[in-house]
Amino acid sequence: MGRVESACATLSAIRENSPLVHNMTNIVVANTTANALLAIGASPAMVDGPEEAPELASVAGALVVNVGTVTPAQAEAMKLATAAAHKAGRPWVLDPVAVGALTFRTKLAAELLENKPSVIRGNASEIMALAGQGAGGKGVDSTDSSETALAGAKELAKQTGAVVVVSGPIDFITDGTRTAEVANGDKMMPYVTGLGCTATALTGATLAVCDDPFDAAVDAMVFLGVTGEIAAKGSAGPASLQLDIINGLYQLNGDILNATARVEMHEAVA
Amino acid sequence: MGRVESACATLSAIRENSPLVHNMTNIVVANTTANALLAIGASPAMVDGPEEAPELASVAGALVVNVGTVTPAQAEAMKLATAAAHKAGRPWVLDPVAVGALTFRTKLAAELLENKPSVIRGNASEIMALAGQGAGGKGVDSTDSSETALAGAKELAKQTGAVVVVSGPIDFITDGTRTAEVANGDKMMPYVTGLGCTATALTGATLAVCDDPFDAAVDAMVFLGVTGEIAAKGSAGPASLQLDIINGLYQLNGDILNATARVEMHEAVA
Amino acid sequence: MGRVESACATLSAIRENSPLVHNMTNIVVANTTANALLAIGASPAMVDGPEEAPELASVAGALVVNVGTVTPAQAEAMKLATAAAHKAGRPWVLDPVAVGALTFRTKLAAELLENKPSVIRGNASEIMALAGQGAGGKGVDSTDSSETALAGAKELAKQTGAVVVVSGPIDFITDGTRTAEVANGDKMMPYVTGLGCTATALTGATLAVCDDPFDAAVDAMVFLGVTGEIAAKGSAGPASLQLDIINGLYQLNGDILNATARVEMHEAVA
Repeated sequence: MGRVESACATLSAIRENSPLVHNMTNIVVANTTANALLAIGASPAMVDGPEEAPELASVAGALVVNVGTVTPAQAEAMKLATAAAHKAGRPWVLDPVAVGALTFRTKLAAELLENKPSVIRGNASEIMALAGQGAGGKGVDSTDSSETALAGAKELAKQTGAVVVVSGPIDFITDGTRTAEVANGDKMMPYVTGLGCTATALTGATLAVCDDPFDAAVDAMVFLGVTGEIAAKGSAGPASLQLDIINGLYQLNGDILNATARVEMHEAVA
Repeated sequence: MGRVESACATLSAIRENSPLVHNMTNIVVANTTANALLAIGASPAMVDGPEEAPELASVAGALVVNVGTVTPAQAEAMKLATAAAHKAGRPWVLDPVAVGALTFRTKLAAELLENKPSVIRGNASEIMALAGQGAGGKGVDSTDSSETALAGAKELAKQTGAVVVVSGPIDFITDGTRTAEVANGDKMMPYVTGLGCTATALTGATLAVCDDPFDAAVDAMVFLGVTGEIAAKGSAGPASLQLDIINGLYQLNGDILNATARVEMHEAVA
Repeated sequence: MGRVESACATLSAIRENSPLVHNMTNIVVANTTANALLAIGASPAMVDGPEEAPELASVAGALVVNVGTVTPAQAEAMKLATAAAHKAGRPWVLDPVAVGALTFRTKLAAELLENKPSVIRGNASEIMALAGQGAGGKGVDSTDSSETALAGAKELAKQTGAVVVVSGPIDFITDGTRTAEVANGDKMMPYVTGLGCTATALTGATLAVCDDPFDAAVDAMVFLGVTGEIAAKGSAGPASLQLDIINGLYQLNGDILNATARVEMHEAVA
């Protein structure tokens, strides 16, 4: 099965199974990521109380952990929930927002890695910081290029066993051996807050239905890249783009994916 | 006065009095429910600190309590605020998001019921869980039909003295004796996050101006059902639907209500 | 340089420098204010954990503090972060949402003033409450006119050394000596939740690039007033208005400012 065919199959599986995706996320994107998950066909639940998060994480199809506006209380709940997901064999994805730029969450992310995320998705500065490289971004924004971060991403994948995604004009997805490049998207997308968080949330949906986290990560980046690229055509500005992305995820289908997706695979020579 | 005439009068009263509606709600819908309340003509305030919530609850026109992303700190504030509202004779409405699916909030909801909500609005699984029936939903989504939940809703209304609303393709509103059915809405509405929460928030506005909580609950479901049904016509997707619902609440008037509302009343034989 | 030329220069400086604007804000507007800041060209980061906020506040271009949904934990973080900003010589702006109407945040705002905000932006009731006048608003909404609050605003500016902004149909900006009036905007704007918060957030962006906080405050009110006025033309309702404001901030340029801005300056006779 080709890469795009695989993405089509994943999309169908999400719509058929409507997987429960548990999100522990930030106050900026809670609404938009819930809507993105509903639009793609998943069943999102945003739950981050310390009594509740472990309970839900152990039964959900996948868990999404995003440290964007983390507080000490939410951090404790994230530790418990990722441990519960790991123990229950549930996949989870980490979004290390602003890791490297802020001390507390940099330490937190290192602790969370012990609970074995299936996927880590960040921008170049965040991934380099997690890999122990780079100087950290500017707040939540990257100061490094995705290409620069690729070596660190491969290293991080090998260290953690996770698939690592570096978002940018070209998205790189690697498990340390295989690497995929997704060349969809649009230069207006960084003007919408939290589309990286949306990519991570969609990875929750794909993880819930894919056997291989590498496929899940590639498919999620394809879904958002394709939808964003189409939505940006003739868009009046970032608010219209956000709106058209949610509508576009709802309308997304195999024909659109086949016509628009640009994915390249690279296999490392063993 | 017929049911739709009553809804028209309620709408006028909200616009005339701009009631202060105090919301203790979740991070997913705080923005959209504030905008829905402003659009209908109310004055929303989102306040959930433990020092502030009881103070506001005792002077607001109505209080809306939504446990969607409840934390232990917010739970304590909800107990204090609902007690303050009850003591001050202020109406309040409970949205038991995901009650039945998660243990902590199921216990919390039971405690909150002691402070005598005027209205409880949930989906079928949530209402059945509160009534001590059913197995709980999948995260925040219902796994039961509204029809199935109606008997439990009547029982819950009798137990608690609250008007109980079961949202679904047809909304059921009951005080244990009277039952109304609102048949407005559209099948795209569940693809927008938190429209149930919006129904609950609108119930805060109606409770602040109606003498009878049963009328308030019916009117709120009519406002959202009518607006959603019109907004969904030719909608490109759920983000457009959300946008058009807020615009539609702003434009809502008696002519639109009379032309579109579909409400049926059933009186139990004593 | 005339007032509008100055605003044009500020806009260019934001786009050129993309200043990091640190926001400690409320759950209602976190998304919309992040999007407004991105649209104008700034780099927003929403961070309010007590371990992280002081770290970020001491390096950000400016700090925005908004007490809209303040909790005790966030209040402590706000005290630490404003102290850190003050110590590091970073400008910060206070949005005293509902101060005067609620006791806890009224005390908090008084404490925060000790850390010397560069700008305070509120509605008439909030500014009068901070100035020790008036009876407080209705929840988050003003019950006083901007004109009424102007004397209190001048007094507050003199007491605190901050530039004080009173938002309303006409916005007043004063440092106690100079006063500016911005007459842009539209009567639909109060139907969108948190546009006042957006004005405050934009003030974070202007503070980060302007030497004089008075200029920063005027320019931010011009940016939002002009954008809102244009967006409201033919708008179908408040949700369309919100969307068009974000798009409009992205499209804003010198020609639009020169064609639309209505600013008057008044210099007090010494």
